[in-house]
Amino acid sequence: MPATGPLPRGPHPEAPTPMPAHTHYLWFETKRRQEIIDITDEVGNQVRASGIREGFVLVSAMHISASVFVNDHESGLWHDILDWLEGTIAPWEPSRYRHNETGEDNAAAHLRSLTVGHEVIVPITAGRLDLGPWQRVFYGEWDGQRRKRVIIKVLGET
Amino acid sequence: MPATGPLPRGPHPEAPTPMPAHTHYLWFETKRRQEIIDITDEVGNQVRASGIREGFVLVSAMHISASVFVNDHESGLWHDILDWLEGTIAPWEPSRYRHNETGEDNAAAHLRSLTVGHEVIVPITAGRLDLGPWQRVFYGEWDGQRRKRVIIKVLGET
Amino acid sequence: MPATGPLPRGPHPEAPTPMPAHTHYLWFETKRRQEIIDITDEVGNQVRASGIREGFVLVSAMHISASVFVNDHESGLWHDILDWLEGTIAPWEPSRYRHNETGEDNAAAHLRSLTVGHEVIVPITAGRLDLGPWQRVFYGEWDGQRRKRVIIKVLGET
Repeated sequence: MPATGPLPRGPHPEAPTPMPAHTHYLWFETKRRQEIIDITDEVGNQVRASGIREGFVLVSAMHISASVFVNDHESGLWHDILDWLEGTIAPWEPSRYRHNETGEDNAAAHLRSLTVGHEVIVPITAGRLDLGPWQRVFYGEWDGQRRKRVIIKVLGET
Repeated sequence: MPATGPLPRGPHPEAPTPMPAHTHYLWFETKRRQEIIDITDEVGNQVRASGIREGFVLVSAMHISASVFVNDHESGLWHDILDWLEGTIAPWEPSRYRHNETGEDNAAAHLRSLTVGHEVIVPITAGRLDLGPWQRVFYGEWDGQRRKRVIIKVLGET
Repeated sequence: MPATGPLPRGPHPEAPTPMPAHTHYLWFETKRRQEIIDITDEVGNQVRASGIREGFVLVSAMHISASVFVNDHESGLWHDILDWLEGTIAPWEPSRYRHNETGEDNAAAHLRSLTVGHEVIVPITAGRLDLGPWQRVFYGEWDGQRRKRVIIKVLGET
């Protein structure tokens, strides 16, 4: 059926939005130098705000001495993680690392970030975080007591 | 003939589908407590079922004591990975970990999941998994003998 | 001016492109067997070439003995990473690993790839890599001196 007016400029008013994205930055300034913080609720809030029903949310530390990871909301485990990073993965001891000859003392925090990773992708199904029953999203601060941030970026279909 | 009625509700019939998503859950119940399982074929099947030609597939364990990773289909290496997780990364020994004071004994499985990661994104090009010649996708069970699952979620353009 | 013929088949000409994808392969052949290479500029160039303004770029090693990671452009740290992989995570020593009974000697490179990861997703905001002030993207070669590659795949909205 022919249209009778000029074709509209820009997206057709009835066409779906192609792939909306929604971006939010979370700021932290931890009291302790190492700290683990549950950010699942903030991530879920941003997914709701995005209006995206099916897609992915990227949660990514914007610093090279921090992590974002998915694990368990259990304080004994958080203690185990900090102990394990110090005792097994990368002891803080500044003199072990060449990076610290630049005047830094946080080379261990970089290696901890590499081990645990700095980002996760959480699937979104029917407008909600599609996590398993015990899965929660955490910010892992390995060199804090200063302002740092995480990007939350949602991509998908409304 | 000119259109005489209201514009249709919903997507324009000639408009492309915006960003289709396809979701599937894989269930596991391993016989051994630690086990490595090649799931590449299941992931490829879901990509075909999705009809998506260009995009990403997220493959993510829905448990905090398991991993999804990309590596080599070689049984000697799988043995090396299990040995390395036990000998170098996080010995099972329950008394080492505060988490296990809750009645659990699987704190080591959590630390193994943090090290290896719990998810991968595989690129999809021309309707197929765009993996290198030796790359395969694996489920790593670090505390099994019970029902657990992985989400496969495909996002992209048809 | 009104259209005089039937509506074209396929996407509506005024409809937005649904979710364009852009794919590029980076090749490497390192001089040393282990090497860390900053590829941020190549990733940024591909994001610009894609025309995508909001989305994700996947940067993923197509080999099981290499990594892609985000960290610091500081040569002392690169030295620390190589030392740490050898001294703490997975010593090269071929006789430690069953994988090497196949005639390989690179089992340690596989374990290093599992620890550091083989891929990252970088968010794209307003057409640019949305990285923190010190974040750079690296290729980590753990078994080089031969041709290997990384896939860069951009997904999002134009």
